[in-house]
Amino acid sequence: MAKLLEQIDSAIDLHAMSVTDLEQLADEIREVLCGLLSIRTAHFASNLGVVELCLALHATFDFRQDRLIWDTGHQIYPHKLVTGRYQDFASIRTRGGLMGYPNPSESEYDLFMTGHAGCSVSTAVGLTSGDDLRGESHRKSVAVIGDGAFPSGIVFEALNNAGELASNSLIILNDNRMSICPRVGSVATYLDRLRSNPFYTGLKNEVVKVLNHVPVFGDPAEKLLAQIKEGVKAGLHGGMLFEELGIHYVGPIDGHDIGLISKYLRMVKDKQGPVLLHVVTDKGHGYQPAEKDPVFFHTPPAFEDQAGQAKILSKGSSPAYTNFARDAIGAAMRRDERVTVMTAAMCQGNKLEPVREEFPERFFDVGICESHAVAFAAGHAKVGLRPIVAIYSTFLQRSYDQIFQEVALQNLPVTMMMDRAGLAGPDGPTHHGVFDVGYMRVFPNITCMAPGSGQELAAMLDFALGVDGPVAIRYPKASAAEFDLSDQPIEMGKSQIVRWGTDGAILGLGPMLEVAVKAAEVLAAEGLDIAVINPRFIKPLDADVLEQVFDECRFVVSAEEAALMGGFGSAVLELACQRGWDTRSFRRLGLPDQFIEHGDRAELLAELGMSVPGVVELCRELASQGAEAL
Amino acid sequence: MAKLLEQIDSAIDLHAMSVTDLEQLADEIREVLCGLLSIRTAHFASNLGVVELCLALHATFDFRQDRLIWDTGHQIYPHKLVTGRYQDFASIRTRGGLMGYPNPSESEYDLFMTGHAGCSVSTAVGLTSGDDLRGESHRKSVAVIGDGAFPSGIVFEALNNAGELASNSLIILNDNRMSICPRVGSVATYLDRLRSNPFYTGLKNEVVKVLNHVPVFGDPAEKLLAQIKEGVKAGLHGGMLFEELGIHYVGPIDGHDIGLISKYLRMVKDKQGPVLLHVVTDKGHGYQPAEKDPVFFHTPPAFEDQAGQAKILSKGSSPAYTNFARDAIGAAMRRDERVTVMTAAMCQGNKLEPVREEFPERFFDVGICESHAVAFAAGHAKVGLRPIVAIYSTFLQRSYDQIFQEVALQNLPVTMMMDRAGLAGPDGPTHHGVFDVGYMRVFPNITCMAPGSGQELAAMLDFALGVDGPVAIRYPKASAAEFDLSDQPIEMGKSQIVRWGTDGAILGLGPMLEVAVKAAEVLAAEGLDIAVINPRFIKPLDADVLEQVFDECRFVVSAEEAALMGGFGSAVLELACQRGWDTRSFRRLGLPDQFIEHGDRAELLAELGMSVPGVVELCRELASQGAEAL
Repeated sequence: MAKLLEQIDSAIDLHAMSVTDLEQLADEIREVLCGLLSIRTAHFASNLGVVELCLALHATFDFRQDRLIWDTGHQIYPHKLVTGRYQDFASIRTRGGLMGYPNPSESEYDLFMTGHAGCSVSTAVGLTSGDDLRGESHRKSVAVIGDGAFPSGIVFEALNNAGELASNSLIILNDNRMSICPRVGSVATYLDRLRSNPFYTGLKNEVVKVLNHVPVFGDPAEKLLAQIKEGVKAGLHGGMLFEELGIHYVGPIDGHDIGLISKYLRMVKDKQGPVLLHVVTDKGHGYQPAEKDPVFFHTPPAFEDQAGQAKILSKGSSPAYTNFARDAIGAAMRRDERVTVMTAAMCQGNKLEPVREEFPERFFDVGICESHAVAFAAGHAKVGLRPIVAIYSTFLQRSYDQIFQEVALQNLPVTMMMDRAGLAGPDGPTHHGVFDVGYMRVFPNITCMAPGSGQELAAMLDFALGVDGPVAIRYPKASAAEFDLSDQPIEMGKSQIVRWGTDGAILGLGPMLEVAVKAAEVLAAEGLDIAVINPRFIKPLDADVLEQVFDECRFVVSAEEAALMGGFGSAVLELACQRGWDTRSFRRLGLPDQFIEHGDRAELLAELGMSVPGVVELCRELASQGAEAL
Repeated sequence: MAKLLEQIDSAIDLHAMSVTDLEQLADEIREVLCGLLSIRTAHFASNLGVVELCLALHATFDFRQDRLIWDTGHQIYPHKLVTGRYQDFASIRTRGGLMGYPNPSESEYDLFMTGHAGCSVSTAVGLTSGDDLRGESHRKSVAVIGDGAFPSGIVFEALNNAGELASNSLIILNDNRMSICPRVGSVATYLDRLRSNPFYTGLKNEVVKVLNHVPVFGDPAEKLLAQIKEGVKAGLHGGMLFEELGIHYVGPIDGHDIGLISKYLRMVKDKQGPVLLHVVTDKGHGYQPAEKDPVFFHTPPAFEDQAGQAKILSKGSSPAYTNFARDAIGAAMRRDERVTVMTAAMCQGNKLEPVREEFPERFFDVGICESHAVAFAAGHAKVGLRPIVAIYSTFLQRSYDQIFQEVALQNLPVTMMMDRAGLAGPDGPTHHGVFDVGYMRVFPNITCMAPGSGQELAAMLDFALGVDGPVAIRYPKASAAEFDLSDQPIEMGKSQIVRWGTDGAILGLGPMLEVAVKAAEVLAAEGLDIAVINPRFIKPLDADVLEQVFDECRFVVSAEEAALMGGFGSAVLELACQRGWDTRSFRRLGLPDQFIEHGDRAELLAELGMSVPGVVELCRELASQGAEAL
């Protein structure tokens, strides 16, 4: 089967391989990728697309000393397979197994743990500059970045700097005409034009002939004409956008021709100054169903190939918070024509395709440009609309300063729907959305909420759209709790007493509410009467109910799927301190001050004591301590 | 004197004025600006540069319904003078007076409170899109953005989106060839080239003649040639970089010719699709000393004009923290050649010019591109260098996601020197650096510190450069405390007991240490023995000393020049909760959950109870409460 692949100890082995061997290796890699997908959800189409590029890179460079950064990082699988991780490959995206993203602790071939898009050019330019300063200019830094990530603002910042530094970095634009969804924006249109330019279509020689027939007049037109000729020549090989910034543009070339890519890589390897090599690939290349529907096959559920057809093996469980959010957004748009939606290339992840189809004129996919998305939404809010910004908790970090200046400072009614708030499971630390409670609540004017069920998420969105200021709603990548909590409507800063008892109390924020309720049921059977509070609001807090809880309950536990540092429990502590409540019987349950690795979400939470048994155990312990103290 | 100016009630009055009148108005505005600078430090050169542009804009548009956003916002003075705020103008940048930035609560002509650079294009595109949806397409949104702000990533994100939306926004590029310092980057080089293009230099007609002599061959060259002609024509009026993105480029034009600017504004006013109008101005225009040295005259100290020479009236007080930082950075670079420095166009604000001059090869001004600065620094750290990122606390928010992914997640030794951490005084809420304690400490791996004196800042930088992970050091825009605290070297997570007493304790973070020491002296004279702790570390905390304090002192006060929400006091509460300490006699002093307005820093702090008398008063109160409780 994978007879070449299994012989590879290190990527350096590829230097000795012929193009034919490399092509066979590509086939073997595709087979392994398809095999993996028969057992597990994983990134697929993007990995199929970069197989040849990956092999050509490793066949040309020695990335033990040269430096390779895979932007965004989910296209790292072929790279992992040829850098000593073939044997462990089946463990990918499982607890304790390989990460689905680059991981420096796995291999010297992985430099940066990436997951957020667009920073590879900056780090590559930084690496080149650093190597130069250390007298190691022979090392070449290479960034491989997709066309989806390319319009991210930081890429432009990096090009601006690379051009000035005349940095010897190599930037490979992996142009598959896709983000996760079809890409958007005028950079995308520009790249489309580049692919139809004379260089790519082979008309170059004709043009050179034409140029030689251009007549030359006297000065000053002569000087000017020389300039024009230069301009036309630059235009000939395309890439003026990059050339204007001092970046040498080469391409576009076929990204599935290993021999051709290798030839170009050798050509640009020792070139002085920044080079952008434009490589055209097909997302899903080599597996027809994925080529036809690269959106679905970006991270498909496990499937089995049956004669060239992908048969999905598993079907989803109960509806996720994401589904409730999607439906609530759709309903709000139907009800109120002031409601608009911004997504940063995550229409698919947020399952918003039906909303996009129903309201194309009020749906704005701005590409992987979170900063712009938020400032753009502020513009909408300013003219009286009610924009909803749907961005994952962790990616919203890219808009942090716009949340500050354009939204919070202006006190504008922008609603931020923070999906994947909590542990994102197999994607790991780059995708866990665990810092938003801490980073969001520091800004004045922002209301912060977390629903305890799918129904409540819908109610919270409706509430948020009526608030005359910014609101952030966080919800996890998880099946929504089933219970209906809508008998008590959402009111600003009001929590909900789900059950009452004075042996102790649990403040179960968001998805921890379900855990708290179940834990309380277990404890009730043991004779412990535990109150369960659904805080609903992280900011402002419900001081009245909290006072009652601190006053009457023998212990209080806050539980949140967020970093403890600066989190919801800290907010409770702040209020308690302000009010002079005794917090010695208060415990905060949440994520410790470390990056949490990848793995099954339930498994990770259980290990952190955040499952029902964990909460039960903690309560038992606190109850017995309280008994001792009595 | 200002006879035209004082007659203007509203900017709409400018519609009736002749170009000659407007030119006189420009003179009057310059006189007022020079007059202001004789009494107060304020933004100067940038305001002198936009006088004509501002008048032409108001003479052409009606910004009660059209929408004008001044990017960054410090060039707002002429705008304020013609929008009904001439009478109040002398109050600018003082407590209770006009803001030095746009302020929607002052005037309907100010749309967004700005201060951070680069977001105006996004908000303008958002406003246009919102107006279109509301059926108000007759309103025109105009963003005025300087060439210094232009390379900010978010601008590129906005252009990418504007091109696709075919947004009718007007972007005015105010090109004065300067950031605060001379601008950098390849976009700057590109703009320089645009200014020497045929359109600007008047050679256009010659070129059209040339084009008409280009021979035409048979197909396919013919078709190609047509393309080339189009390309050349586009190149003729320059701006290919923008045209490629679907932005119609017009210019460059002389930004001090009111008639000319008005003509162009009328021309592009009703144009469909996004337009970039390139206007060339001189920073400091109309006042020779400022034209000659626009860096110094960006925000000069108060000066008096003496026959065309600016005589500085006031001289600085004792050295600021910024000076100590600068000297410490210079010393570190002399000592260790691995040390490099990144600034995001704030070389002057950070007083780093001498460092730049001494170590040009290790000094990187990347322009107003904070995101790139941090990711670039991560590249340096990865190859074994010791980068120092010198960015103001509030502007570092622009790098939030890079601090997360490129620095904290990789645990790389990047030192962040956060100047202006605390109240930035007359600049106001866009510049106050009060959220960094909360936003920074949520990330694992980051060590967070704040020095209590200038000497300690130097010692902390030296310490930070020896830490094998990221470190953030926050210090205020203030004269450094004088006392030398270096007898106890900096150790990880160790605080310093400055004085001991058990009647109470003050944890005086950063500049609040000096306040705490002085307060303790006052209280000592009253017979109260107050401990003063210099925490040094926000993260990790010194659990041992804090335990002693909570154990032995009758009350504890934490004092920090930062937002209370998620701040240092909250970190102490988290530790106390974890350790089971009683926090009922603990008080947190810091900034409340609201945006703090502009004004003199000392005055603002005093109002918030953070001056020596305020702390003394609080301690007296706590001491007497404690006495009652006994």
